[in-house]
Amino acid sequence: MKFKKAICLLSGGLDSAACLYFARSQGYRVIALTFDYGQRHDCELRSAHALAKKIAIKHYDVQFAMPWRGSALTDKAVLFHDAKDVEHISKRIPNTYVPARNSIFLSLAASCAEAEGASAIFIGANAVDYSGYPDCRPAYLKTFEILIKKGTKAGAEGRTIKIFAPLLRLSKKQIVLLALKLGVPIEKTWSCYRGGKKPCGRCDSCLLRAKGFLDAGIKDPLL
Amino acid sequence: MKFKKAICLLSGGLDSAACLYFARSQGYRVIALTFDYGQRHDCELRSAHALAKKIAIKHYDVQFAMPWRGSALTDKAVLFHDAKDVEHISKRIPNTYVPARNSIFLSLAASCAEAEGASAIFIGANAVDYSGYPDCRPAYLKTFEILIKKGTKAGAEGRTIKIFAPLLRLSKKQIVLLALKLGVPIEKTWSCYRGGKKPCGRCDSCLLRAKGFLDAGIKDPLL
Repeated sequence: MKFKKAICLLSGGLDSAACLYFARSQGYRVIALTFDYGQRHDCELRSAHALAKKIAIKHYDVQFAMPWRGSALTDKAVLFHDAKDVEHISKRIPNTYVPARNSIFLSLAASCAEAEGASAIFIGANAVDYSGYPDCRPAYLKTFEILIKKGTKAGAEGRTIKIFAPLLRLSKKQIVLLALKLGVPIEKTWSCYRGGKKPCGRCDSCLLRAKGFLDAGIKDPLL
Repeated sequence: MKFKKAICLLSGGLDSAACLYFARSQGYRVIALTFDYGQRHDCELRSAHALAKKIAIKHYDVQFAMPWRGSALTDKAVLFHDAKDVEHISKRIPNTYVPARNSIFLSLAASCAEAEGASAIFIGANAVDYSGYPDCRPAYLKTFEILIKKGTKAGAEGRTIKIFAPLLRLSKKQIVLLALKLGVPIEKTWSCYRGGKKPCGRCDSCLLRAKGFLDAGIKDPLL
């Protein structure tokens, strides 16, 4: 029997880990793809490695630099704006937005998918909690699928590479419950935008994660 | 007076150099963007640097690796198929095709454009001589423009980033003539896919360049 192959973007966070396990539950042989783009929370890279190692999957690590400025995630000169609590997280585009990040990630994933003969790309994008990020919206992901069809050899030859974002419409609570159900080793994931030894508990990502665990009635093993 | 800003993809080849000079002739303040992706013809990088230095423009150099296999340009295990002559260059997708390369290039350019406040991206793509590459086709480039609109903060805020491919429908002869007219220092460009000291004269890129100079009635200063 020939396996279906999928490329799965694996940042090392809770969402991408849940997405990875979901792809496997759908019968895909998964190749993980992790990006080191100078993010300040580079301890998520260690999480990505630990997650991939645990299930012994093929794992590519791609480094690239974005020498231009403009995001609190990659530029230490830009300060975080911590929200007072999860209700106060801005619905506008936050300054942790990295210009065109998902397009860079997905185009590298498309390249990998083509080279590896994969028919799917899984991305843990979420349009509920991260409604501020334009590159997490359904219309954007649909356009990227068209782009792959038009701009690759695979597309020209009629081989489809689909983009799946199974967490797109889930709340953080639902993601926590899904991760538990799928057996994700949650203690190996990392969500905090700050790269300390323990999650800071104050950034948007920590606040959203905490609310997810609280709503799910589960204790976060990282805390 | 405020200048219009443009990001210009600069590989160091004749086409991208002509494209760069064209963008400047249209009144843009140009920022050049060069990619080091493990291409075997990395002497084109030296050309890119020399070209940018000559006109003293801002120049970003982005390195990334594509650890997956699949192209004669990045994988030394894959041999070139040299055509007998320019008439015999395959109309199919050649094995120098790099999976999703222009999507990777354009998404990094979109990121740079957003961060730098540029309103245009110039790419020296050509659909005549390189008809085999799916990511050099007009419909593909149009789709990428829509992608930027949907997937960036700039797009969400109504700032347009347009993609210009001024060489798209030009023959190699026309590109040579354009480069001459615009004052491109052609002796600083590099087109050969093989990374030797002199152009190999046998790869598709050398054959097309040679035909362009021949048809234009000009001697290639590199030869």
